[in-house]
Amino acid sequence: MPDAPILLSAFTMATVSHLNYGLWRHPDDQTHRYTDISYWVELAQFLEKSGFDCVFIADALGMIDVYGGSADASLRHGVQSPLIDPLLLVSAMAAATDRLGFGVTLSTTYEFPYIAARKFSTLDHLTHGRIGWNIVTSQQESAARNLGLDQQIPHDERYARAEEFMEVVYKLWQNSWEDDAVVRRTGPDGESVYTVPEKVHPIRHEGRYFRVPDGHVSAPSPQRVPLLLQAGASSSGSDFAARHAEVIFVVGAGARGVRDNVRRIRAKAEGFGRDPRSLKFLTAVAIVTGENDEEALDKLCEYQRYYDPTASIVHYASMTGVDWAATASDAVLHYRTTQASQSVLKQFDPEVSGRTWTLSEAANPKDGFGRATTFVGGPKTVADALEAWLSDTETDGINLIQLINPASYADFARYVMPELRARGRLRASDATTLRARIFPEHGSSRPRSDHPAARHAR
Amino acid sequence: MPDAPILLSAFTMATVSHLNYGLWRHPDDQTHRYTDISYWVELAQFLEKSGFDCVFIADALGMIDVYGGSADASLRHGVQSPLIDPLLLVSAMAAATDRLGFGVTLSTTYEFPYIAARKFSTLDHLTHGRIGWNIVTSQQESAARNLGLDQQIPHDERYARAEEFMEVVYKLWQNSWEDDAVVRRTGPDGESVYTVPEKVHPIRHEGRYFRVPDGHVSAPSPQRVPLLLQAGASSSGSDFAARHAEVIFVVGAGARGVRDNVRRIRAKAEGFGRDPRSLKFLTAVAIVTGENDEEALDKLCEYQRYYDPTASIVHYASMTGVDWAATASDAVLHYRTTQASQSVLKQFDPEVSGRTWTLSEAANPKDGFGRATTFVGGPKTVADALEAWLSDTETDGINLIQLINPASYADFARYVMPELRARGRLRASDATTLRARIFPEHGSSRPRSDHPAARHAR
Repeated sequence: MPDAPILLSAFTMATVSHLNYGLWRHPDDQTHRYTDISYWVELAQFLEKSGFDCVFIADALGMIDVYGGSADASLRHGVQSPLIDPLLLVSAMAAATDRLGFGVTLSTTYEFPYIAARKFSTLDHLTHGRIGWNIVTSQQESAARNLGLDQQIPHDERYARAEEFMEVVYKLWQNSWEDDAVVRRTGPDGESVYTVPEKVHPIRHEGRYFRVPDGHVSAPSPQRVPLLLQAGASSSGSDFAARHAEVIFVVGAGARGVRDNVRRIRAKAEGFGRDPRSLKFLTAVAIVTGENDEEALDKLCEYQRYYDPTASIVHYASMTGVDWAATASDAVLHYRTTQASQSVLKQFDPEVSGRTWTLSEAANPKDGFGRATTFVGGPKTVADALEAWLSDTETDGINLIQLINPASYADFARYVMPELRARGRLRASDATTLRARIFPEHGSSRPRSDHPAARHAR
Repeated sequence: MPDAPILLSAFTMATVSHLNYGLWRHPDDQTHRYTDISYWVELAQFLEKSGFDCVFIADALGMIDVYGGSADASLRHGVQSPLIDPLLLVSAMAAATDRLGFGVTLSTTYEFPYIAARKFSTLDHLTHGRIGWNIVTSQQESAARNLGLDQQIPHDERYARAEEFMEVVYKLWQNSWEDDAVVRRTGPDGESVYTVPEKVHPIRHEGRYFRVPDGHVSAPSPQRVPLLLQAGASSSGSDFAARHAEVIFVVGAGARGVRDNVRRIRAKAEGFGRDPRSLKFLTAVAIVTGENDEEALDKLCEYQRYYDPTASIVHYASMTGVDWAATASDAVLHYRTTQASQSVLKQFDPEVSGRTWTLSEAANPKDGFGRATTFVGGPKTVADALEAWLSDTETDGINLIQLINPASYADFARYVMPELRARGRLRASDATTLRARIFPEHGSSRPRSDHPAARHAR
């Protein structure tokens, strides 16, 4: 659907610097205010007013500490540390907005499904149906180590546990409370009823990892099931995404690599009985724009002066699980260094890209900002590039990386969104829930009938 | 200190009916809006404007399901069900207020201390130092059952685990990050520093229940340690409270029973090396007031018409761990029915009160609303009764139970607070953190030097 509305998500994290390595040093960047609730409220209000569909807040449960074998470099360079809990930001942003969606990250590895289900039911109530869940399984050794595990649970077992976790939360959200269980019928003693007990059902789940006999503690929320988001590049990860995710963050080596992954995941989804066209895909992109191409290029040059290449490698080490501290920047990367690094290095797979990469090139490519796919230019240039990218990759929208905050979002809203609107590529939605907004063709706030959550619906 | 300012906390829960059995049926009660964030924002704004010190939000992780062996009765009667997650309400209320404190409940039994520490650091940042933690160990079998335990961890072991849990979070909050670790020093590459790594320390905790080698992920928040609240009536519970709590919710059989418990906990605190006068005590009370005594009595009669005695027994069954469904209402209660019931029944201990109680009397005493200590009357009558109660019980303030919401709080603010203010019993504090507000004599937002958290401070 080349002319479909573009899904616009703002990509951020509750920390001083997410993927904008070094830009906390730029005088206009406000991200160091991340502990101040007014910063988040202002951001949410701005994004909603501008027409973004949602704000997506990444998370990690442990420190970035692969580079040099400690967290020293990530602390010094402000790489995703210090960090606060993104779930706790949502209600303030929800109270100040009406339509913006919220994608928040929660790990299935360190939560009880019974408690996680309540968290998302709560947030779905408080946002009036605007919550999305970015499902992660937590790959970080630094998280595992501090949460009582000698080392990370093996990757495939994490996904097996995540699979059962989803089954439990689907049952709690979908199968426990009937829509009309809460009646709030007043009358004399013996006749007044708040909830009809016969319409609240125990789920009696007995599995390999979890046993949850009772029903859900929360009444059904507007979406019942949060919009399900996932980033899965590994084989288990993309199986999981193809089965459960409604919106998928996809990576790949260039447009062709992204498109191959999109097709692969759509085909898997079809194998699981889902309409492959019902999955929506996002890529993370950075956009530097202004009145015209020249102004945008000047801005990029300015940003690059603040760019911190070491910060990028520090993060890259954590993503790949390889300590690059002792590697020369001109060393050629070998593809299969560790299992954890496969999914990341695959983006730079020589077989796909037709060339080899040095550490410096892989961690700090020259053609954008950091490793991000970057579009630079005035309104028309960026809109053209973005449309071509979406078409070539067969994706549905972008997760817009913050460079300078809020200036990067503001520039995009000021320069590029009017151009996209003129081209008919922005949605004018009056949907009030996130699922209805992202899937207008579906016409419901609840999961589609071919989604596995629907199997548990009464 | 008979003339000390009275600590005023508003006692509520994120559900349709907390301790005001049946009053969800009153036409003025707004509590059924508990899933609407605007309800909580309005409540917080009203409480702050009126001069309350904090709002305290209770929680439970499982259903109320002892009565009749199922949750049917609690669902039907709206007894603390359905329920949402109170932690997720805070940021919205914080964004709309400047001085109000927030007491929220988190269980040490079903959390990782590494993650719990981040939650409270996050909330302490977002509230600018106005967060308090009501530490619970979760007695409910219904929680244990759905969280993977065959049955509840034995009471004393829950407290042993809670003790080590506190040690871990104290280390993370107090010992990991130095005050001046975050410098945000900009400069050319190699000279700019966000956090000085040498000022962030791993805690290297190795204990019986937890192993946490690394440092905290969040930078120090205004209070570093949330204000610590606890309700502990059992022996292990009161040991824990005497060791860790700064504000204690205390119960007892009448004023004398409360006072005995206050003295007992203060004495224990002294045994743990704490100044016994540094602990503050609250009791939960209900207040029905109006222009004058007659109007207040009329109001009480009206509220009692909506009172649901079965709801009270349903909750009482869950508190005592005894299924009273088959017990005649005129049956005399026996003191030691089950271990879980001891702490609750102690309030009605014949040895203390000098009389026996029937089920009906214990669950539904005639002299107030439900089991709550209730003061009824015009401004002077209530202020007199309240001052006498605080003096007789040697407590420092009240956790005001909501009957009709927000009318009960509004009536208290309109009729009783001016009278208390005229008597010099309300604090006019310009403190911005919760700890500094509650302990003006302490003069700091951090824990006192004789508190166990202080032992972990650098």
